[in-house]
Amino acid sequence: MFTLRNIGIHSSHENTIFIREDSPLTHSEGFKVLTRVFVHFNGSKIIATLNTVHSNLLKEGEAGLSEEAMIRLNVKDGDTIVVKHLQPISSLSYVRAKIYGKELSETAYQEIIKDVVDGLYSNIELAAFVTACAGNNMKINEMVYLTKAMISVGQQIKWEQAVIFDKHCVGGLPGNRTTPIVVSIVAVAGLIIPKTSSKAITSPAGTADMMETITKVNLSVEEIKEVVKKENACLAWGGGVKLSPADDLLIYVEKALDIDSEAQMVASVLSKKAAAGSTDVVIDIPYGKTAKVRSHEEALKLKYYFEVVGEAIGLKITVLITDGSQPVGRGIGPALEALDVLAVLKNEPDAAADLRERSTLIAGKLLEIAHSCSEAEGKKMAEDILASGKAFEKFKAICKAQGGFNIPEKGEYTFDVISDVDGIVTEIDNRKLARIAKLAGAPKSPGAGIIFYAPLHKKVSKGDVLYSIYAEGKGQLEYVKEYLKSVNHLIVIE
Amino acid sequence: MFTLRNIGIHSSHENTIFIREDSPLTHSEGFKVLTRVFVHFNGSKIIATLNTVHSNLLKEGEAGLSEEAMIRLNVKDGDTIVVKHLQPISSLSYVRAKIYGKELSETAYQEIIKDVVDGLYSNIELAAFVTACAGNNMKINEMVYLTKAMISVGQQIKWEQAVIFDKHCVGGLPGNRTTPIVVSIVAVAGLIIPKTSSKAITSPAGTADMMETITKVNLSVEEIKEVVKKENACLAWGGGVKLSPADDLLIYVEKALDIDSEAQMVASVLSKKAAAGSTDVVIDIPYGKTAKVRSHEEALKLKYYFEVVGEAIGLKITVLITDGSQPVGRGIGPALEALDVLAVLKNEPDAAADLRERSTLIAGKLLEIAHSCSEAEGKKMAEDILASGKAFEKFKAICKAQGGFNIPEKGEYTFDVISDVDGIVTEIDNRKLARIAKLAGAPKSPGAGIIFYAPLHKKVSKGDVLYSIYAEGKGQLEYVKEYLKSVNHLIVIE
Repeated sequence: MFTLRNIGIHSSHENTIFIREDSPLTHSEGFKVLTRVFVHFNGSKIIATLNTVHSNLLKEGEAGLSEEAMIRLNVKDGDTIVVKHLQPISSLSYVRAKIYGKELSETAYQEIIKDVVDGLYSNIELAAFVTACAGNNMKINEMVYLTKAMISVGQQIKWEQAVIFDKHCVGGLPGNRTTPIVVSIVAVAGLIIPKTSSKAITSPAGTADMMETITKVNLSVEEIKEVVKKENACLAWGGGVKLSPADDLLIYVEKALDIDSEAQMVASVLSKKAAAGSTDVVIDIPYGKTAKVRSHEEALKLKYYFEVVGEAIGLKITVLITDGSQPVGRGIGPALEALDVLAVLKNEPDAAADLRERSTLIAGKLLEIAHSCSEAEGKKMAEDILASGKAFEKFKAICKAQGGFNIPEKGEYTFDVISDVDGIVTEIDNRKLARIAKLAGAPKSPGAGIIFYAPLHKKVSKGDVLYSIYAEGKGQLEYVKEYLKSVNHLIVIE
Repeated sequence: MFTLRNIGIHSSHENTIFIREDSPLTHSEGFKVLTRVFVHFNGSKIIATLNTVHSNLLKEGEAGLSEEAMIRLNVKDGDTIVVKHLQPISSLSYVRAKIYGKELSETAYQEIIKDVVDGLYSNIELAAFVTACAGNNMKINEMVYLTKAMISVGQQIKWEQAVIFDKHCVGGLPGNRTTPIVVSIVAVAGLIIPKTSSKAITSPAGTADMMETITKVNLSVEEIKEVVKKENACLAWGGGVKLSPADDLLIYVEKALDIDSEAQMVASVLSKKAAAGSTDVVIDIPYGKTAKVRSHEEALKLKYYFEVVGEAIGLKITVLITDGSQPVGRGIGPALEALDVLAVLKNEPDAAADLRERSTLIAGKLLEIAHSCSEAEGKKMAEDILASGKAFEKFKAICKAQGGFNIPEKGEYTFDVISDVDGIVTEIDNRKLARIAKLAGAPKSPGAGIIFYAPLHKKVSKGDVLYSIYAEGKGQLEYVKEYLKSVNHLIVIE
């Protein structure tokens, strides 16, 4: 038994408990640093990893919990907690079987994912599960089981309408912010599209980061339903409605390891779509040397997985394989992408043509599905709606229904990167561009990022601006300049 | 730049840095909780995982490091440290390749193991490497590369003599403490056997824990050499001489995951033997339903791995496959095993016959190799040396050369577990016995553990003592009693 002290330490999703090194518990029960223990309070319990303390941070009889653990256990400073030995976590035996290459049952995935969401897995155990499932180690059946398990532990949104549309891009392409345009266009045509998007994990901006520069995105399920009832669509943040809480934990480990497990990507995307109540989903897979999907073959395999797993869980999936050799649009970073999106919606003459093209392609595909028309007719319909100005009106209406419509601002500090040669742009490294935007402060500083002026095949002259960097602080701009000194082959001009 | 404050938190081998949540660094450079960062001081650097703090634990401009990280970076309270972005760790690309089932090169293993020992890997990354290498995913070549890599990063002991003997047991059998007896016998016969052993990780006692109840085991390489020069042998703690520092880190993760990767076991054992300068090694593989190695087939496969990898790194390996269906000897726990060992060495009439038999078998094998004699002759020689009392004299001499010879004491608090039926003992669960000994306090409380009276095939009557539990504190004994209420099938009597 310990008296809890709030020592104000954050350790993210892995709960940490701090106990004095000279505590009787560490002696009598053999608890060592990094032992996993049960922490009980008031009928509920969590699992935490033990750190010991030998300073006066804690007095005798006191223990500390990381902030996140305190919230999960619903305890406050002064409460009495009890620390006990961990009972073995039975689903880990499935993880071990997976490590040894065994095919797992539906029950196994259900139990693993339930325990993951309940916080029973340490980072080491999560990493072992993610690793064992990566590298083409999962059968199609297992992808289906994993997807179903991920759906079952999250919140599910039900709709009255029989057909609910959705779109998704597997990502990896800076600036590729088609979602707000696509959603606005098809909502004008009467399609129901309650879009939930993610925030950036390793990219300079997610759709939710971009939308947050214009309106409120952290909506409850009830608020989402109200907005959709009014406008056929929403542009909300998925993290606010916990559609796939298991995914949030697994993605964290994947990103830390920098691996993209196809099976987990498919399960992640489709579980969120199913949980959001979608029935008809268009998935965009851009491929390119420096995109997330590197080759056309890889894109085709991923397409197959989306189709077969989608079918198994009752989703109608349409996959578009697109060009991922360079950024789409000019802005990279939340506000800069928002300005790009707004320019396209407003039909401004100098709006990014590639962003308009990609957006009407995807919107056209959704309309083609909805109206059972030809591809050309769907595309034409999308272009007409955009050109009419109705998509922009719809976008503003959605934003207002969500809480307001603001025009965001670019970062105050800026710096132009100039070509020092004449020639044609033959290659662009998406990853390095993304890194620069992040160093400039995106997505945390919404006005930070890049405006990009040097797409593939463009003829540039010595002295032309290739791209401009925006930051909200002088220090961050200096940081980017430092990085630029060391970076090579970001844009190849020949 | 931060002023370091010693906040007295232990977080074991994963370095942790604590920074205020409102630090400019977390804003300007996008450092989030669990970001991995470089911490620089005085020309050297470590990698640490970031935790943020929002209490007054740290003042503005201050940062904290976990104790272990402070030692590694050699900083003290008040020093000025610098925190920087982590550069990508290039060896992780090999780990990713391994996750995808690729065969790795010798260079790859060298780089991975070097980075592991340099502390560049997080727990998540270590877990991914261990997982990717488990489950029969490594080719023989790769086991050789891993073993060589593990040797190259540790300390290596050189000897003048051409032939250096060694023995090893893969473990998993409570009480199986043959080492001190084997070493003493063969040292009498003139064999050079500088034995280094480990402490318990998940078992109730390692040989080093047992030896520590009698003498000093934490010796430097120079001290080991002196003892061996005098007595032909030593019985030291391997952890004190850092023969395989990579192994210590990998084993931690394996134990956390409760997986025994054959490849890593082979690399772990053989790297330590090679680093210790051994040339001729006898390896004991006990197998049984509740031992570490579960079947004779598994034991044969492991034997093959030891032989082929041993040959590749220039070791002469002889494998004994033995019975692992029950504990060897009667004592389980550091002091109780020591008393068992002493009884055998002193030729006491009631000494554990199975421990004597197993010890002379292994010693006999070493003598057979040394003298190129028959198995029977080797065994006979070992038995004669033991019976003559010379092995006991040698054992005492080794202990005195290491720093003293003390007879350890059993725990003061004791409790007998009584049979409530008549019958024959048909099955024993080694794992549950080990667990009881650990709950009683072993190995931390040296006098804690079990004395076991109910070997297989023994006829027991209702009321007979099956085993006695010893503890150094009353609370621990209560803890065991609590566990005994819930445990089933520990000893099957039919």
